[in-house]
Amino acid sequence: MNNKLRVAIVGSTGYGGVELIRFLQHHPHVEITSVISSSSSGESIADGFPHLTGVINRPLDGVDPVEIAGRADLVFTATPSGVSAKLVPGLLEAGLKVIDLSGDFRIKDGAVYEEWYKHPAPSDELLQQAVYGMAELYGDTVKEKTLISNPGCYPTATLLGLVPAVQAGWIDPSSIIIDAKSGVSGAGRGTNLAYHYAEMNENFKAYKLNKHQHIPEIEQVLGHVAGSPVTVTFTTQLVPMTRGIMSTMYASLVGEHTDRELVDLYRQFYENRPFVRVREPGIWPSTKEVAGSNYCDIGFSVDPRTGRLTIVSVIDNLVKGASGQAIQNLNLMMGWEENLGLNMTPVYP
Amino acid sequence: MNNKLRVAIVGSTGYGGVELIRFLQHHPHVEITSVISSSSSGESIADGFPHLTGVINRPLDGVDPVEIAGRADLVFTATPSGVSAKLVPGLLEAGLKVIDLSGDFRIKDGAVYEEWYKHPAPSDELLQQAVYGMAELYGDTVKEKTLISNPGCYPTATLLGLVPAVQAGWIDPSSIIIDAKSGVSGAGRGTNLAYHYAEMNENFKAYKLNKHQHIPEIEQVLGHVAGSPVTVTFTTQLVPMTRGIMSTMYASLVGEHTDRELVDLYRQFYENRPFVRVREPGIWPSTKEVAGSNYCDIGFSVDPRTGRLTIVSVIDNLVKGASGQAIQNLNLMMGWEENLGLNMTPVYP
Amino acid sequence: MNNKLRVAIVGSTGYGGVELIRFLQHHPHVEITSVISSSSSGESIADGFPHLTGVINRPLDGVDPVEIAGRADLVFTATPSGVSAKLVPGLLEAGLKVIDLSGDFRIKDGAVYEEWYKHPAPSDELLQQAVYGMAELYGDTVKEKTLISNPGCYPTATLLGLVPAVQAGWIDPSSIIIDAKSGVSGAGRGTNLAYHYAEMNENFKAYKLNKHQHIPEIEQVLGHVAGSPVTVTFTTQLVPMTRGIMSTMYASLVGEHTDRELVDLYRQFYENRPFVRVREPGIWPSTKEVAGSNYCDIGFSVDPRTGRLTIVSVIDNLVKGASGQAIQNLNLMMGWEENLGLNMTPVYP
Amino acid sequence: MNNKLRVAIVGSTGYGGVELIRFLQHHPHVEITSVISSSSSGESIADGFPHLTGVINRPLDGVDPVEIAGRADLVFTATPSGVSAKLVPGLLEAGLKVIDLSGDFRIKDGAVYEEWYKHPAPSDELLQQAVYGMAELYGDTVKEKTLISNPGCYPTATLLGLVPAVQAGWIDPSSIIIDAKSGVSGAGRGTNLAYHYAEMNENFKAYKLNKHQHIPEIEQVLGHVAGSPVTVTFTTQLVPMTRGIMSTMYASLVGEHTDRELVDLYRQFYENRPFVRVREPGIWPSTKEVAGSNYCDIGFSVDPRTGRLTIVSVIDNLVKGASGQAIQNLNLMMGWEENLGLNMTPVYP
Repeated sequence: MNNKLRVAIVGSTGYGGVELIRFLQHHPHVEITSVISSSSSGESIADGFPHLTGVINRPLDGVDPVEIAGRADLVFTATPSGVSAKLVPGLLEAGLKVIDLSGDFRIKDGAVYEEWYKHPAPSDELLQQAVYGMAELYGDTVKEKTLISNPGCYPTATLLGLVPAVQAGWIDPSSIIIDAKSGVSGAGRGTNLAYHYAEMNENFKAYKLNKHQHIPEIEQVLGHVAGSPVTVTFTTQLVPMTRGIMSTMYASLVGEHTDRELVDLYRQFYENRPFVRVREPGIWPSTKEVAGSNYCDIGFSVDPRTGRLTIVSVIDNLVKGASGQAIQNLNLMMGWEENLGLNMTPVYP
Repeated sequence: MNNKLRVAIVGSTGYGGVELIRFLQHHPHVEITSVISSSSSGESIADGFPHLTGVINRPLDGVDPVEIAGRADLVFTATPSGVSAKLVPGLLEAGLKVIDLSGDFRIKDGAVYEEWYKHPAPSDELLQQAVYGMAELYGDTVKEKTLISNPGCYPTATLLGLVPAVQAGWIDPSSIIIDAKSGVSGAGRGTNLAYHYAEMNENFKAYKLNKHQHIPEIEQVLGHVAGSPVTVTFTTQLVPMTRGIMSTMYASLVGEHTDRELVDLYRQFYENRPFVRVREPGIWPSTKEVAGSNYCDIGFSVDPRTGRLTIVSVIDNLVKGASGQAIQNLNLMMGWEENLGLNMTPVYP
Repeated sequence: MNNKLRVAIVGSTGYGGVELIRFLQHHPHVEITSVISSSSSGESIADGFPHLTGVINRPLDGVDPVEIAGRADLVFTATPSGVSAKLVPGLLEAGLKVIDLSGDFRIKDGAVYEEWYKHPAPSDELLQQAVYGMAELYGDTVKEKTLISNPGCYPTATLLGLVPAVQAGWIDPSSIIIDAKSGVSGAGRGTNLAYHYAEMNENFKAYKLNKHQHIPEIEQVLGHVAGSPVTVTFTTQLVPMTRGIMSTMYASLVGEHTDRELVDLYRQFYENRPFVRVREPGIWPSTKEVAGSNYCDIGFSVDPRTGRLTIVSVIDNLVKGASGQAIQNLNLMMGWEENLGLNMTPVYP
Repeated sequence: MNNKLRVAIVGSTGYGGVELIRFLQHHPHVEITSVISSSSSGESIADGFPHLTGVINRPLDGVDPVEIAGRADLVFTATPSGVSAKLVPGLLEAGLKVIDLSGDFRIKDGAVYEEWYKHPAPSDELLQQAVYGMAELYGDTVKEKTLISNPGCYPTATLLGLVPAVQAGWIDPSSIIIDAKSGVSGAGRGTNLAYHYAEMNENFKAYKLNKHQHIPEIEQVLGHVAGSPVTVTFTTQLVPMTRGIMSTMYASLVGEHTDRELVDLYRQFYENRPFVRVREPGIWPSTKEVAGSNYCDIGFSVDPRTGRLTIVSVIDNLVKGASGQAIQNLNLMMGWEENLGLNMTPVYP
């Protein structure tokens, strides 16, 4: 009705899906016309998510590209990796614009995708067509495109923290080490002994050291910015909390730079970008300071004793690391203001 | 500027204050023109609350009624009990409307106030002038008043859960037992060994049994609804979580009633009220299902074996239990739609 | 070897099983000669529980009564309800003594068992043979028996809190209301969306109101103590923590009694019992104060305004509510000191 | 009485103090003859720590070296840094043996101490006399000494993880980067807004980057092992949990080494040491796997792509990182078995 953009969400019963609903409910130019789940089709979404009672009462639709195209202009695919690869071609053929949150269209080189993701890559044509939608770095390239690949949660926190320094040539890309920590919602809603409350509470766990599929995504962007291939050491760890990522990054400084200079460099880099906030020297952000919001907050520590720079970057993994950034991409695709529907203050405490 | 209502917040550096800011930032008819803290005057509010960086950059003002009246039309006093009693008379004299979150103006009988709160009551004139702003019960009386006393967090969850059944005569008021649980943010931001993370984590604590100052507030309303004095057994307990209250309530049924009848009774009672949601029979709400939102969700269990009714009622203590309800009162005072600025989906998970 | 009692544990890969191992490792008269799991037979127990690396390196055995009887004198069955009912007869026939943690042998009336547990009861002969092993109440009856039914977690906290007052006739049994809260480990180690960290963290949930299978167990004991049938209102709730139960109990006082008198009554009742600690008037225990230990701590609040008594009782659900109490029963069966192997200080903070 | 060692604990009302009590209660050769607190002298320790009710009922003594020497043979000083520096000389003069947990006697160079700790160093004579008691590295030097300086929590996890590889020459000491995370109990029991439950829950925080006073302690040992000065990059972070440290360490490999070789090297290095457990290749320990125990668990990830080694090391900060290690030092001083009183299985879950 009227002239709002009609939007469908595939994967509505995951955490990414419900966060899309939370934000899009308040988006002035969007109407959610279909919420889709292959597993729960026919049920009301509020049966599985009682917090949505009275917010959205729509029954869940099935996954049929033609039907979706009859109801919507654009679709968010908040599906597991591997599922999107199979689903998206049909959605595009049916004439839909697609913003994909799965990771399947992030890696330009299909062979690299298959090495890290362990299942077949989408067609090379689609991989080249997909635009990597990290707004603060590639926002200009998103406008009027039809297939946007939304960045991963760890890469978002990490790349927003590293790119300005790499681009300025202030750090040595070959020295980069990334120690990343995530809340448990990053693992999704699937049941697994590892995410059982009694196993995860009062527990800090390392997993997938040097094997995480976000490594090639980070290296692809850093290599692009640095102008030559970059390899990184990358550790992922689970924190006993629901939301939040902190990426703590280490690199050798090239030349001498102070915390003050870093702060100024980053503030200039992110000028006019509404969602990156750079802390004053000697202050580092904590994950709770961005919870529920689309912000990425960054702080620095130059250590003259070792000649190294430490960068701390935090996001809410479900917002800036997934659904919020996807809506930011929607806004840029459509030529709207970047922060429409996303202008939420962090929920503190 | 323009014709928005100019609003000031006293106690901006407490949790109630920052939640008022979070919601009022998005209120279409309101402009925050002063954030006030006696203890931190002159500093920026974002120094103490970095999550507000870029959201509100205003320096904190001091507490001077005349200055406040020069900047604002209405003031929220999110101050500790005892402080409001002294501050509010001056604010009213200076011509401000006041919505008080402290508890100082909730008890109509000054002697009862002093017995439970352990400090001197405000003048009887002000106690009688103050309107107890529980929208779903007394919403009609709030319009165009100048002093609103915002309900307590425990009484909000409890009374919304009990009043329809008491008013219908379906439960015996003399049998009411209330077992209430709160997240730790309810204790405020003051430092205290009891709220130290290492003491409170993995811990469930009972406190102030039968002594909590919210008891006379609950009894005052129940007595009013029942038509004669009511005394209740009331237990307060701290849950190792930040936000949320669950009030579990027990009473003897008068006559036979099913869960279905209870659900229907409550849905009818709260018809057209946007913030109360009643669960289907056999389903009870959990605190996370209302987190960050102004909802109060309610469920029932009739036990034919014992002839008793159990009622489960949940709110976010900082929203429906404090700041959200205060804004709901603002809307009703001003004759605006009840949910303006409050239309937020719960943040889940 | 030597003359230690040889003990086997069936269900070694559940939380009850690993807690048995933790305590029995330090028991002076016991040797664990077999750890048994139907699902993981052949693997090392430390594969699934790396915290046991170097503590116990034994491979998991299968469930064969004759083999077990060849290796052990006594077996703990820490199996799900329904499994023990089928397994225990064979273990007894093979000549083993059995301490069962499952619940299958707690209810004397098979029909009542089937109504609440929803599967077939064990034979009436075994139900009558089984001794309900709540040491502080029935410790004298345990000695030299062959089948002990270990009490449930909720009943343990609840009955230790209620029985002295009921027996003294100080409270009206028909008025008893029990509001119980448990940490998530009480749900066991099975995966289930409800226990996913992201769903349970920052969440307080009510479940199974008036339907929990521990209700007939509580009523059976209270009826026995009161001398006539008792029905109770019983609410179960999950707390976002791993360990701990608090049972908050309400009843109408018969006659006038002070907190001081209650404290004295209970201290006398539990004299010489090493694991019940009664707090001074006006002080209530919190769950963390017993974590990791076999204590049950109790406090009171008499409310002269309502004539009701509130009792607060806390235990560690996995210790006094399961494995610790099972070892206490072992000690009593064997005629050893009640606290052998159990003399652990709570782990605080 | 009898011939147990008489032990006093100064700082009994901190977390280090109560953990000493928990373990020493079960130590076969030790009797606690005095628990001492400057702030709470005269009160019962169970008033402030109700979990100790019935475990230790002793009233708290004041801090008087001569009185202490009358009651005890050896004293643990679990006092804040700066306090021990002033207190320990008097204790030694009074003829007591001292195991100091404060950090004041760890740094051999007083000027370095003052630079990092920001208050005056103890006398150089005492600094040289003090033996740094990291059992697995310097256990042989502890025997029969009178002043033991117990290592810091972060240095314990870090050095046990790094020293074997540094000593073997398998990693380049100049490349070491340490990303350390701690539970909140590491901050002690003092009240502070930063440790308020509502601020710390659902929050992951970086603090004191490159400024933490444990840096010179780590560098002193690594320099000693490497044979020349070492500087490290060191990040400290708070995890929303009570107990546990994970130290994640990065270094460039010298030569090629596999995870298998690392595991073998470390197992050989720690042979016969009861408290270090090395995980199989591809498996990393989590903090909960050592909770409540004196274990340090270690895992590895060699990354051939970058030529770097990642080492993961976990301890319970209050046990192996403080009180447990102090008792380990006691055992070595006295020539007893290293694990006396410490043979506790981790408390899981």
